[in-house]
Amino acid sequence: MLKDVPSLELLLKTLQQIPYLASKNLYRVGSYFLTLDEQKIEQLCAVILQAKQRVIPCPICCNWQEIDRECTICSSPKRDQTIVCVVESWQDLLAIDKTGGYQGLFHVLGGVISPLEGVGPEELSIELLVKRLQAGAVKEVILALNQTPEGEATSAYVGKKVRERGVQVTCLARGIPVGSHLESMDRLTVFKALSERRPF
Amino acid sequence: MLKDVPSLELLLKTLQQIPYLASKNLYRVGSYFLTLDEQKIEQLCAVILQAKQRVIPCPICCNWQEIDRECTICSSPKRDQTIVCVVESWQDLLAIDKTGGYQGLFHVLGGVISPLEGVGPEELSIELLVKRLQAGAVKEVILALNQTPEGEATSAYVGKKVRERGVQVTCLARGIPVGSHLESMDRLTVFKALSERRPF
Repeated sequence: MLKDVPSLELLLKTLQQIPYLASKNLYRVGSYFLTLDEQKIEQLCAVILQAKQRVIPCPICCNWQEIDRECTICSSPKRDQTIVCVVESWQDLLAIDKTGGYQGLFHVLGGVISPLEGVGPEELSIELLVKRLQAGAVKEVILALNQTPEGEATSAYVGKKVRERGVQVTCLARGIPVGSHLESMDRLTVFKALSERRPF
Repeated sequence: MLKDVPSLELLLKTLQQIPYLASKNLYRVGSYFLTLDEQKIEQLCAVILQAKQRVIPCPICCNWQEIDRECTICSSPKRDQTIVCVVESWQDLLAIDKTGGYQGLFHVLGGVISPLEGVGPEELSIELLVKRLQAGAVKEVILALNQTPEGEATSAYVGKKVRERGVQVTCLARGIPVGSHLESMDRLTVFKALSERRPF
């Protein structure tokens, strides 16, 4: 059926390259574009291009910044310059920043080490992090990578590099999420919560 | 944080207008665009615009068709011209077509009647369907709208209109999905499966 509408087929194939568009939503998004005015589509394209041209990674922490402004996190005098929280992505940075409970600096790795996907340590901003530590201002590095196999391996790798520079390394607490019931948690989480228990 | 990167904020706000981009994926998709080459973005935009210009609704059934080709469903000599299956959207048409078990025609309504969202019968292609029936070739109309309150109301409205033209109206069977367990089904579905049981 789709083969008889090649322009639509090409649109769907192109949209498919955008990650995180589940295959079901793909058809919906494709259909949505066809119902838009041409003008709206041109606007959308202009906005994407402008963002691409004006938003760049911060040369210090790799967070996104506007091309003609400073990174608001690195340049903030209110933030604690002695702590750096290492995250995989900008989205994870936002998640931590939204809590309002962290006032240190960040470092966005840009992914995790994943030999299967051809991502080695040199593809990430690990060297940049190590260079940041050479100035001597940073006293603690918090590893806030996700608990996937790749995330854990990357944490181990980064942790080793940071420790070699004589800087303290910590990681996020693992345990029962707030509001969850013990009986509904997986075994490993309960085990971690138990073995990493803390004074009350 | 986002306010300090206005181009990125604008990008996210624009992407937010695309339906079915869950708010979590929104950030990921936004980030993805920033990592693309400018050339790739221009290609994507060209593909969307081309689809918009070259893909139009079929004047008979409202399915998408290439501008310089016939609708392959309406023009197919192999299809049974006496049955029309009414669906909400092109995606639903694909879902039915993929089964391979239906060889009749289709009619895409383009949504459902929803007073709350300002969609009345005249916004949908109901009149077009009624006109199709006037030729007299169609003997049966299958209502395949979703079982939402709006879908049910639209089915009732369309069903009445079709019946007035002396054409038989049927709807999809309701019951236990293949592979599901009775105990995990909701009460209403089990009730429907029971009250609409059929000879074995």
